[in-house]
Amino acid sequence: MQQLKKEHFITHFSAENKPAYKVRLNETFAVETFDCYGGKITSETQLRTEVDIPFINPATGPIEIEGVKKGDILCINIQNIELDEAGVMVLYPGMGVLGEDVKETDTRIIRVKDGHIQFNSQLQFPAAPMIGVIGVAPEKGAVLCETPGDHGGNMDTRWITTGSTLYLPVFHDGALLALGDLHAAMGDGELDGSGVEIGGKVTLQCTKLAGAPAIGMPAVETDRAWFLISSAETVEAATKKGMRAAANRFRAAFGLGFNDAYRLLSATCSLEISQIVNPLVTVRIAVPKAVLPDLFAPGPLL
Amino acid sequence: MQQLKKEHFITHFSAENKPAYKVRLNETFAVETFDCYGGKITSETQLRTEVDIPFINPATGPIEIEGVKKGDILCINIQNIELDEAGVMVLYPGMGVLGEDVKETDTRIIRVKDGHIQFNSQLQFPAAPMIGVIGVAPEKGAVLCETPGDHGGNMDTRWITTGSTLYLPVFHDGALLALGDLHAAMGDGELDGSGVEIGGKVTLQCTKLAGAPAIGMPAVETDRAWFLISSAETVEAATKKGMRAAANRFRAAFGLGFNDAYRLLSATCSLEISQIVNPLVTVRIAVPKAVLPDLFAPGPLL
Repeated sequence: MQQLKKEHFITHFSAENKPAYKVRLNETFAVETFDCYGGKITSETQLRTEVDIPFINPATGPIEIEGVKKGDILCINIQNIELDEAGVMVLYPGMGVLGEDVKETDTRIIRVKDGHIQFNSQLQFPAAPMIGVIGVAPEKGAVLCETPGDHGGNMDTRWITTGSTLYLPVFHDGALLALGDLHAAMGDGELDGSGVEIGGKVTLQCTKLAGAPAIGMPAVETDRAWFLISSAETVEAATKKGMRAAANRFRAAFGLGFNDAYRLLSATCSLEISQIVNPLVTVRIAVPKAVLPDLFAPGPLL
Repeated sequence: MQQLKKEHFITHFSAENKPAYKVRLNETFAVETFDCYGGKITSETQLRTEVDIPFINPATGPIEIEGVKKGDILCINIQNIELDEAGVMVLYPGMGVLGEDVKETDTRIIRVKDGHIQFNSQLQFPAAPMIGVIGVAPEKGAVLCETPGDHGGNMDTRWITTGSTLYLPVFHDGALLALGDLHAAMGDGELDGSGVEIGGKVTLQCTKLAGAPAIGMPAVETDRAWFLISSAETVEAATKKGMRAAANRFRAAFGLGFNDAYRLLSATCSLEISQIVNPLVTVRIAVPKAVLPDLFAPGPLL
């Protein structure tokens, strides 16, 4: 199995980046990743306000996926996430949703052992590993690894985890996949501005959909649902964008008019929050498989 | 078992309302409810824009809960929700998050049979009954049944369902409980402005917590989590309010400083959306029981 080392990483998703690695479709490969701080914070004496970190969220890659063409949909099956032994959670005044309530800067090193996060000497809870940053080269320009978008990037979506399949639009031949910013745990919203930030190794397998209807944004599939992942400047704008994509799929799949597609969405789909702390916020429209078995079904199912 | 009929209902939650019914603590009782339109829409020829509905969300009650005092927390165990045979979903331009995309006014009568919603002749999905409006008399004044708040009301929260326990602050002796606005199904967000709106009958049992720490807002308990239910003018304001309540509980339960409580919240709790279409929006902070076994634990657990 190819082991792609973290020494090759990007700071921006861009078609200008030259591939550092190359994998084939259906090949299982492993990707080693830094934490979001590039591994620079390893002690509780290091305060975020005093550590020089020139770029945030380094993403290992770019990885050229052989045989994937512009216009395809890249399907990324996440087979395993192996976490390092310890993660970090920093805080400083202004950080996250309640940043105004943070009065002092401090750092916690948080160990992960036997699948549990040791929050402090008395409080433990199960780890829930996830990938914060994963994406492909965007259609145009360069997008900082800190920012989510239709190319993926810093989506901080906890369903991007072991056993899930992530679907990304492909804007350039070879896709130029990159990933990093693992979390040992993170609640929806990423409410203090971070998860348990950690490095590790992710095992992946890529396939592709050719000729499938474009969703226009990333989507993730779990056993129970499809999640359309929509990023924009506000929760309201991201919600509308994701809802329009879901309503369009209902129209195409079931031959419904707009009103009935909108009703079906309201009765069965949920607005979920991925994160509200990045330069763009990310929401998900959760579409139950009990309603829509295949998000990428091409025409009227009925 | 007492059967409380829907003929006695309120249009505002208020301590000024005289009790229509009286039940004892631990008594199991059934409450018949109208749909949110008071049962006035029964045919697809009736358009919402042409039907005169003088008040929305009539709530059956008020129900005096004997032995419940101001300052207690009312615990409402929802034992069963029995739905009528058909619900309704109206639409008109401007309604819900994508209201600007609605070009025509129309009405759908949607049948519920054998636990499934018959959306149209070809598309069915499982019903997911829930209570849209449930609350007590607020501390001051009169709150329209359309509006959610710290007293409960139109929270449109899908975990307020069979098997859950809802916790409401009690502002007046006897609580003055009322409920209505059932949905046969509704996704988080209530994105088109409605669920499958339906009447029915709810079976409940009330107990109380005396001397428990005040949460300051409703909460609902399921097998896996506690959900703090926070309503405010914006998603941001509701989120901050709910997060502060959750962080306060972590501080009290685990003896943590603010920064560590905030970190624990970010690593383990999720921001969830109940609805974004009512006069105030409603969000939930989901606190896993794996982290906090008892939301109402009085002091340091550790």
